[in-house]
This record gives sequence, C-alpha cells and structure tokens, in this order.
Amino acid sequence: MDPRATFPVTPRTRAGRKPERASYDRAAAHAILDEALVASVGFVDDGVPFVIPMAFARQGERLLLHGSSKSRLLLLLAQGAPICVTVTLLDGIVLARSAMHHSMNYRSVMVLGTPRELVAEAEKRAALERVVDHVLACRSLATRPPNERELRATRVFALELEDVSIKSRGGGPIEDADDLGLAHWAGVIPLGIQALAPVPDPLHAPAAPTPAGASSYQRGRVVSAREVQP
Amino acid sequence: MDPRATFPVTPRTRAGRKPERASYDRAAAHAILDEALVASVGFVDDGVPFVIPMAFARQGERLLLHGSSKSRLLLLLAQGAPICVTVTLLDGIVLARSAMHHSMNYRSVMVLGTPRELVAEAEKRAALERVVDHVLACRSLATRPPNERELRATRVFALELEDVSIKSRGGGPIEDADDLGLAHWAGVIPLGIQALAPVPDPLHAPAAPTPAGASSYQRGRVVSAREVQP
Repeated sequence: MDPRATFPVTPRTRAGRKPERASYDRAAAHAILDEALVASVGFVDDGVPFVIPMAFARQGERLLLHGSSKSRLLLLLAQGAPICVTVTLLDGIVLARSAMHHSMNYRSVMVLGTPRELVAEAEKRAALERVVDHVLACRSLATRPPNERELRATRVFALELEDVSIKSRGGGPIEDADDLGLAHWAGVIPLGIQALAPVPDPLHAPAAPTPAGASSYQRGRVVSAREVQP
Repeated sequence: MDPRATFPVTPRTRAGRKPERASYDRAAAHAILDEALVASVGFVDDGVPFVIPMAFARQGERLLLHGSSKSRLLLLLAQGAPICVTVTLLDGIVLARSAMHHSMNYRSVMVLGTPRELVAEAEKRAALERVVDHVLACRSLATRPPNERELRATRVFALELEDVSIKSRGGGPIEDADDLGLAHWAGVIPLGIQALAPVPDPLHAPAAPTPAGASSYQRGRVVSAREVQP
C-alpha cells in the first residue's frame, strides 16, 4: 500500500468518540478540502480561542491562507501561532424516530499545524492565483493579477497537510431496535449548495459576457437520493 | 433606543480590520444563529486550538451545545474551558475584475464565553427539545423523547449570548476605479442551501408519512438576484 495514501494518525488526530466516523484517507481529504468554499480557522489569542471564517485553497499538500498584512490573525501567524483549519460540508439532516438519534450527514476535515509565510514573490503570486481558482476554475486567467502594492499589502501563509483527519457521517438513521415500530417518520433530508443565476456588477455593467463557469456554477456533489439507499 | 437592541462591544469583539463589516445587532445575530445548521466550536486543549463542527440551537439569549458525556470537548467544558462558537452562512461568490477584490458574501456570528452545564432534568429536556426543533420546527413533538439512560449519557451546556459580534458582506464587487474598464466579467454568484426530496429510512420503512416540513424543507433565505441590485 502506498504509505502516502493515508495521513499518519497522531495523538492529536486520533479519534476519541465514534472512531467509525474517522478516516485519514488522503484523497478523500483532498476532495473535501477542494469542495469547501470557506474554512473555519481556529487560533488562540491571549489564552482565548477564536474561530473565524476564511477563504482558502489547497495547493498540493498544503493549505493556503491569506489576508491583510494588518489582520490580527496574520500577525499571530507571523509569530508562529499554531492553528486549526476545519472545513465542513453539510450533506443532510437525519431524522430518527427517537430524539437522541437525530443527526447530520456531513464530511469534515481538520488540519492542525503552524503555517509558514510565503515571501518569495513568485510563490506568493502562484498561491494567490490558486486561491482565486479554488473558487472558480481558471478564474485567475480572467482577472487582473495583483500589482506590487497589493502584493505588499497581502500576506500569504501555507499550512502543510500533515496532522489531518476526516470525520464524516452518511446514510440513514440508526435507531434502537425498540423504536422501529414507532409511528414517527424517519429518514434523511439531503442538503447541498445551490447556485443561482449570476448577477452582473450592478454599479458598473461588465464589458465581458458572463463566463460559462459562473452561469452553471456547481459546487461539489449534491447528494442524491440514491446515495442514502443501502 | 432599547439598550438590549445591540450587544455591547467588548475588547474581544471590537472589529479590527474592516469595521464596516461588523455589527452588534441582537435581532440580526439571532436570525443568523437560527438559520445556521452547524456551528464551528473552537477550544484550546493543551495550548493547541481545535475547531469542530457541532449541532447547536439558540434558546432565547443563549446557545445550547450537547454531546456524549465522554467527549473530549464536553470534559473540557465541565472544567470551565472558554470556547468560541462561530456560525457562517455563505451567500455568494463575488467575482471582481481584479484578483485581489474577489470576495465572498456571507453572514457570520461569533460568540465567546464559558458555557455552563445544565443539570436540572427539566431544563436539560427542554434544551434537547430545542436542539431537535432547531433543525426542523416542532420535530420534537413527532419523535420519542430521551429516556433516563439517554439523558444520563448526554451533557448539555449553555453559552450566554453576551460577547457576540456579527461580520457580514453583501452586494457586488468593489473595484479600483482604474479597473472598471477592464474587459473582465464582474458580479456575484448567489449561493444558498438546497434541500432535495426526503429519503425515508432505507433499512426500515417508516410507519408515518413524510412530514410536510421535510418535503418542503427550506433553510433560511436563498439570496435572490434582486438583493444584490443597488
């Protein structure tokens, strides 16, 4: 087996509760990271935990984060602060016959580590392109690239994919045997992200036509009814 | 003005960067919390930040979290650990003529504090009902309530809504004047949560018909094209 097919299990990523929901599969983690649009980035400031939503991208075996040179998080990162980046895709609501077996279907990835700043201009430019292309494929080719001033005002950090774990749940409700006869409906409401028709810049009509990738924007897989069948 | 209409600004919730995106409006925070299905809960364990996705609910002026009595987070909470609960609703992708002005439209709420355990049985039961009803209105009436064993195996914590802040972005791209003539498309791809047709428990066909709230499940507002017009 390819030793790189799974992330190593570390004391920090070893599953405690519900180990059946945990996985360390590298390709599966990549796929979840690539599908998610927003990451929840956790850090500690003066002993207090903070979680903020951020745009991000995966570039090979690392995650990219960026922001204003003046942002609090980026100043902490520059000092070598450890972070936790968690992304979560919500796939459905699980309704059970019993209140306690209600659940969610989801796929989440947690990445722990200490990001390193990218300072070389070429590397920084490539990373910022990747962040734009994460949102819409090839978008960086159809936009003005960062200029010198913008590059200086932006810091980019890379977090290696080393301490990585997946948690997920799929399928229908899991009930106590005694509850199966109860006259309550049980099943799954599948959820996905829906993109509506693009809205051109309302202040300044764009000179270019709406790109095809925007008109038919699709993010990841909408879980189909078929997938929750046994 | 009703002093309770806004949350007090504290050193921890005062906006640093982009204060125009910050708000402390109580009703708006309630609405975002009520629309979100998953919270990103941040905590510190041995100096390391962790962020995990959790189900939650708002009950008046507090958030409710629950979990297995044996979970790591809940053991930390029982010791009085501070947490950060952040929810984020993604409303759209903002494509600009310049790479650096790409953005996201979103609404997020961050709640800081130290949760308190609910131990009285009646209070615990009411909280667990609220968590189920958060996902689907009145669902707790159509499901078997927790029994004694389930109640004992579950801990419930309440986090007061005191240290609360909103961050949000809406509208179209904000461009540099020099870029407005560029021949790149610019605008917004609105995003929302889409619910598909409910899938009955594939292992044991439910005895009850699909509830109307599941068949026509709607979560919050799908941002319509009209809303990003000026």
